[in-house]
Amino acid sequence: MALPLLQIALDNLTIKDAIEIVEKVEHDIDVIEVGTILLASEGKKAIVELKKRFPNKIIVVDGKIADAAKIFGKMFFDNGGDFTTAICAAETATVKELVDLSKTYSSSKEVQIEMTSNFTWEQVKQWKEVGVTQVVWHRARDAQAAGKNWSDKDLEIVKKLADMGFKVTVTGGVTVEDIKLFKDINIYIFIAGRSIRDAQNPSQAAKEFKNEFKKYWN
Amino acid sequence: MALPLLQIALDNLTIKDAIEIVEKVEHDIDVIEVGTILLASEGKKAIVELKKRFPNKIIVVDGKIADAAKIFGKMFFDNGGDFTTAICAAETATVKELVDLSKTYSSSKEVQIEMTSNFTWEQVKQWKEVGVTQVVWHRARDAQAAGKNWSDKDLEIVKKLADMGFKVTVTGGVTVEDIKLFKDINIYIFIAGRSIRDAQNPSQAAKEFKNEFKKYWN
Repeated sequence: MALPLLQIALDNLTIKDAIEIVEKVEHDIDVIEVGTILLASEGKKAIVELKKRFPNKIIVVDGKIADAAKIFGKMFFDNGGDFTTAICAAETATVKELVDLSKTYSSSKEVQIEMTSNFTWEQVKQWKEVGVTQVVWHRARDAQAAGKNWSDKDLEIVKKLADMGFKVTVTGGVTVEDIKLFKDINIYIFIAGRSIRDAQNPSQAAKEFKNEFKKYWN
Repeated sequence: MALPLLQIALDNLTIKDAIEIVEKVEHDIDVIEVGTILLASEGKKAIVELKKRFPNKIIVVDGKIADAAKIFGKMFFDNGGDFTTAICAAETATVKELVDLSKTYSSSKEVQIEMTSNFTWEQVKQWKEVGVTQVVWHRARDAQAAGKNWSDKDLEIVKKLADMGFKVTVTGGVTVEDIKLFKDINIYIFIAGRSIRDAQNPSQAAKEFKNEFKKYWN
């Protein structure tokens, strides 16, 4: 199994704060996420500025697209996004539109379905059929706040998705200590947000994730 | 049954275009929607500018919140939003956080759950339990493009939601001709987007909606 990638989630309120934190971890991370919070706060300019400043990183726009796939897809891809998320509530017709759009680009553009617990396996089958390559298993921030930890059910779902051939991203308050829980699963990307952003030494925090990856994958 | 309100959806790419269209229909509409597209394009500034220019209108932020309820709720309410949407994929814990937050404001702030066909009635019951007052039944733009019309199923769902006591908004390519389909149902808001924005005479188009409302409600 390949080494998972490390993605930093930028749920900052300003582009300035977002760029400042990435500068501290630029050489330790693989993927930069324009978080939904940053996007709602600053608009698509956040994508433009981050891609311009960090052109060699994969940029994920966490746009959680629910509808109007072509308009959002074009907005996110044309402004520098490599991947974009759609929310699992989206109709399959919307997901298909978005995947079809992503294939019209010469560079590699991909769609990630962001999953909450409100999904069905019938939907997952449909995503596969319309060509979705990536999913994001998202433990809700508010569920975390309510004291819920990574459960056997989370792990079962993540494993099943990986076994179905999806490239799986895991997110939702991931800490270095959580990584080993996923060791038998083919994980494509782990997202760290506050564990890196709020660390005294963000670069060191990112390196600890990478070291942990090396222990269990490769 | 009270007369439904008319909401204009501003799915423009710029604040300038959005303000221009509202100026044409200001006296014909009740509610202004900062569309998800406009929000992603211009950021929260779109809310600020629209509230400033049209302080007497109800402003709905179509933020389709899926998580991080407090951060988004504060961002949208503090910047001038009266209502905000959350997407039906959100965990109930997230919805509850958002409703609880809305109640901390002295002015009237409310949460609307934006529904796609990917919901369960068990969720609807939970929304009711945590104090949600409003839902939005959303016929997908991409479903419309695929030639799907308002179905008996749409109407049944909308009626059931209204009968449960939710204030229901109907959206998704609503035309003047569609209004009569809902005549026996207590509709709170109809959203018109392109039917008004793309009309040769937007004010006249809005008035036609209002006239149609008067035929079937009151």
